Amino acid sequence: MIIHHWPVRVYWEDTDAGGIVYHSVYLNFAERARTEFVRDLGLSQHELADGGKGFAFAVSRLEVDYKKSARLDDMLEVVTRLIEVNGASARFDQRITRDGEDLVKLNVRLGFVALDGGRPSRLPQHLRQRLNDRLEER
Amino acid sequence: MIIHHWPVRVYWEDTDAGGIVYHSVYLNFAERARTEFVRDLGLSQHELADGGKGFAFAVSRLEVDYKKSARLDDMLEVVTRLIEVNGASARFDQRITRDGEDLVKLNVRLGFVALDGGRPSRLPQHLRQRLNDRLEER
Amino acid sequence: MIIHHWPVRVYWEDTDAGGIVYHSVYLNFAERARTEFVRDLGLSQHELADGGKGFAFAVSRLEVDYKKSARLDDMLEVVTRLIEVNGASARFDQRITRDGEDLVKLNVRLGFVALDGGRPSRLPQHLRQRLNDRLEER
Amino acid sequence: MIIHHWPVRVYWEDTDAGGIVYHSVYLNFAERARTEFVRDLGLSQHELADGGKGFAFAVSRLEVDYKKSARLDDMLEVVTRLIEVNGASARFDQRITRDGEDLVKLNVRLGFVALDGGRPSRLPQHLRQRLNDRLEER
Repeated sequence: MIIHHWPVRVYWEDTDAGGIVYHSVYLNFAERARTEFVRDLGLSQHELADGGKGFAFAVSRLEVDYKKSARLDDMLEVVTRLIEVNGASARFDQRITRDGEDLVKLNVRLGFVALDGGRPSRLPQHLRQRLNDRLEER
Repeated sequence: MIIHHWPVRVYWEDTDAGGIVYHSVYLNFAERARTEFVRDLGLSQHELADGGKGFAFAVSRLEVDYKKSARLDDMLEVVTRLIEVNGASARFDQRITRDGEDLVKLNVRLGFVALDGGRPSRLPQHLRQRLNDRLEER
Repeated sequence: MIIHHWPVRVYWEDTDAGGIVYHSVYLNFAERARTEFVRDLGLSQHELADGGKGFAFAVSRLEVDYKKSARLDDMLEVVTRLIEVNGASARFDQRITRDGEDLVKLNVRLGFVALDGGRPSRLPQHLRQRLNDRLEER
Repeated sequence: MIIHHWPVRVYWEDTDAGGIVYHSVYLNFAERARTEFVRDLGLSQHELADGGKGFAFAVSRLEVDYKKSARLDDMLEVVTRLIEVNGASARFDQRITRDGEDLVKLNVRLGFVALDGGRPSRLPQHLRQRLNDRLEER
């Protein structure tokens, strides 16, 4: 299985008045890591988006478990696994960790949508092939 | 059952380059609505927080289903139901709607934590009482 | 002179670990108020944007003075004045206030850009007329 | 003069429906770079904050010139210069660049505040010394 690691530093913008990272910000951290995962497959989301006429991944379902809180200046690592690719969706397991300890666990399902109109689409064959090749390498 | 309604307008800050509301922003909309729900119970989170020495609600688990996308200038409504109160947690069902149609559905479990240290705590009795009174009014 | 007033509540998402509103968030509050100001003139930015093929206001220069801090749960008011309209730009003075006291003062210059390509454009005549009519009403 | 360079990648969260980076997000990019600048001086803001009982830098005045827009996937660099240190404030010039071209220029004045109460304070002597040592190295 491919496991992708991505570092994230916590800045003031990420924290809230409780002194911890605001709960929705972990979704942003996770999305940065998925973007880098996809970039590592040789795919640019900017190219895919094609100035609004192309495609994008869209989150269709999320499950998030918050176990511990991150704080200002923490150096975190997002650990990402692609666990399933179907015709029109993909599923990722992600963990946001600090010193190897899980802080937040996410299960993320992505659909593929046409940006012009937002309709769900099937993954273009070349993209699906590349994702599946990656899974077969496990 | 108490059903709480809260309007939210979509501004540029909420959107992304796909032309739609960025997926983590719906969590912020939902949190605004829970805050207003709690305010309606006569509770100020700022007082509870007590300059960092008090308490706060912390999201411990989230399930989010994304069905349709909101866009710039949309007038949304967050519909919030408090469905369970235990000793140290509460659970909410929330829907983010546009013209009565569900765009995003959330199931949110909150724990109660001491801000000084971030340890989970039990809900103070007076707060639990007030929440339970609300539930009994169903 | 037209003076536009817009209320803004401070939520957890707006605060940082210093217990106050994060400095860039006031720019978002100011933008919401300008959007509502423009909406009051009968203009929808969503229509103007025309799915990415139209136009948008873009901030070209900002001066911001931070005098006092806002905190969680504060009820603020953004006070907006349109002070100048030129062929391709407009200038606003904005104050973010709490109980009538200035917290943050902004001087904002906006340009008008074509979304497809991002080039500066001149204000369409009908829009310029509407803005000037407003100014003349002082 | 010390010149500090810090890379920033543009993600979906940073963009808006105009297809470009939302204007207030550049302030966040600039703050990340100042934080890393200060970290390079051997100062941890988390330690300084001391759980809300210590100190923080607070932006007291900003001037921002927006020249060009950044887009999704862009690799940017924040170039930071500390240009002045007084008893209770410091001033930075920052440029956000892409391929060596300026997109956004910022002039930022920071004050030093006590987190418990938010009052302006003088820079502790050891911190002021460290900053001045850096400036003298020009």
